[in-house]
Amino acid sequence: MARITITDIARRAGVSTGAVSYALNDRPGVSKETRARILEIAAEMGWQPSSAARSLSGAKTETVGLVLARDPSTLGVESFYMQFIAGIESELQKRSYGLLLQVVPDQDSELRTYRTWRAARRVDGVVLVDPRVDDPRVALLAEEDALPAVVVGDTTLAGGLPNVWTDDAAAIRESVRYLHAAGHRRIARIAGTEGYGHTLIRDEAFDDEVQRLGVHGVVARTDYTPDQGATATRSLLTSGDADRPTAFIYDNDVMALAGLGVAAELGLRVPDDLSIIAWDDSPLCEATFPRLSALSHDVTRFGAHVARRLFDRVDGKPGGSFLDSTPTLRPRGTTAPLRRG
Amino acid sequence: MARITITDIARRAGVSTGAVSYALNDRPGVSKETRARILEIAAEMGWQPSSAARSLSGAKTETVGLVLARDPSTLGVESFYMQFIAGIESELQKRSYGLLLQVVPDQDSELRTYRTWRAARRVDGVVLVDPRVDDPRVALLAEEDALPAVVVGDTTLAGGLPNVWTDDAAAIRESVRYLHAAGHRRIARIAGTEGYGHTLIRDEAFDDEVQRLGVHGVVARTDYTPDQGATATRSLLTSGDADRPTAFIYDNDVMALAGLGVAAELGLRVPDDLSIIAWDDSPLCEATFPRLSALSHDVTRFGAHVARRLFDRVDGKPGGSFLDSTPTLRPRGTTAPLRRG
Repeated sequence: MARITITDIARRAGVSTGAVSYALNDRPGVSKETRARILEIAAEMGWQPSSAARSLSGAKTETVGLVLARDPSTLGVESFYMQFIAGIESELQKRSYGLLLQVVPDQDSELRTYRTWRAARRVDGVVLVDPRVDDPRVALLAEEDALPAVVVGDTTLAGGLPNVWTDDAAAIRESVRYLHAAGHRRIARIAGTEGYGHTLIRDEAFDDEVQRLGVHGVVARTDYTPDQGATATRSLLTSGDADRPTAFIYDNDVMALAGLGVAAELGLRVPDDLSIIAWDDSPLCEATFPRLSALSHDVTRFGAHVARRLFDRVDGKPGGSFLDSTPTLRPRGTTAPLRRG
Repeated sequence: MARITITDIARRAGVSTGAVSYALNDRPGVSKETRARILEIAAEMGWQPSSAARSLSGAKTETVGLVLARDPSTLGVESFYMQFIAGIESELQKRSYGLLLQVVPDQDSELRTYRTWRAARRVDGVVLVDPRVDDPRVALLAEEDALPAVVVGDTTLAGGLPNVWTDDAAAIRESVRYLHAAGHRRIARIAGTEGYGHTLIRDEAFDDEVQRLGVHGVVARTDYTPDQGATATRSLLTSGDADRPTAFIYDNDVMALAGLGVAAELGLRVPDDLSIIAWDDSPLCEATFPRLSALSHDVTRFGAHVARRLFDRVDGKPGGSFLDSTPTLRPRGTTAPLRRG
């Protein structure tokens, strides 16, 4: 397993390491005969260019980068990222690429990471997730000499960079319409972190649709953890308000699960007393009783799609805006018509 | 953000790129005066060595590697790996290291990945997870010239490599004793994938403890998915057997959740009719109703511990065998004394 180095080849060939370097990199500075001899010896010794050497010579790093600016303690809770990463990796495998994953505490660290990766040529391109409105990361990656990048999110957030998106607005509108059609007139949205563009897009579509239908809508903020999902649900269900929601739409799966737990805690029957919709759908949603109705899209396939678009960029192909899918509502055991009482 | 290359410096200094390379790498082949001039120009231009160049010159890659040989579609289901990775990253951050994550379909691909990483010097060291009995990956990484490695698992599986482990045998014995003390005499273990060393260790400790206590124990195999967890539970609960278990210990959190769902499906009350213990504990376990009793250890801290031991290896410090923790049983709402009927 010992690596053959330029020094080993130089010693065997009786030439300088510089000469070997010229020969292997196909540069002038060494005679035709010497070059041929060096290449022959290198081949004999089983030499292969290290990724470092390939990178120096302008070749690919065979690595793409993903930065997650999230609190490590909350990162493991949602299955979204692991599924998304699994999807990316399924495409990387086909090209023997690796994924350089960096978890950082905040956006400034993320910006620094991109600058370092660019300066040190550590990756061929990056996947940018959780874009915000007027996102400085998008601005950085839109600079002329920036790393090739694909934005995972809405076209309005991508600043002209290639992007792959899911139509979250359509999905939440569909959910509200469905619950409305089932008789619900007071609907809560248990939303993820404020500031993310996709949260805003869902907020706006939710607000718009409840207004359009004349439904009472309420939005609660969380950090995506089941703990905050449970707290928000408990608060809305115990307020004693006449506007107490009869249906909840959650921004992920684990908060919906927590909501199901709170309902049981309070003796509310799901779906008879309360309807619940999760987002994203996941194997978890089919493991609960009753099974969670959910907005479904294939997160692993989404990740694979993003990786393919990034390879297009790395290969110098044109970018664009690519709709991956519109999450579709899968009614299961946690949604039902409102009982008229 | 444009990177200054050796060619840029050579052009500015009016020398060959070879001369620049010699000067920057502090090698013979260029006069003292020229070297000084080149270094001055490089500094003026804001040149910094790329990771590729540092790597060629024998410096660190500032990257550690983690290969997961798992089916991408099941990878996202468990929160273990994302939490574990978050823990690793929390230590990497302190040194501005990156994590090269590779998801591969099987063990052979994993072996190839280590060989490639070694040959191409892509990482400074690797974290090996899910060690098996007589694991060829352990053998490969124990070779003299191998990448520095830390095994996440029992000392008996580490083949002399440094390892960080949790005392799973003690944890499962504790669970069995606890259920026995609460009156349970028929206990099921819903186990993870056969072949993993830690599955075997848990199996053996479970078998040994149920025999010691004269309890009827049964083990079912799964792939860790909630779907297989539910199927195994359903099968044991509907067999009509007089030996139908009254308590279940699951090898992860999502299968325990699925077990809770199956109990509800069948009209069995948890914990009155059935006790359930999950492993590992996670935020999910506190989101269900009733809350899942669980074997608890801090997976994020575990990951951080592993990263520290790997850095010790990278820094040339001696290895060793390090007990991270013994998972402790946290009884919550899904365990209760057996109702005598």
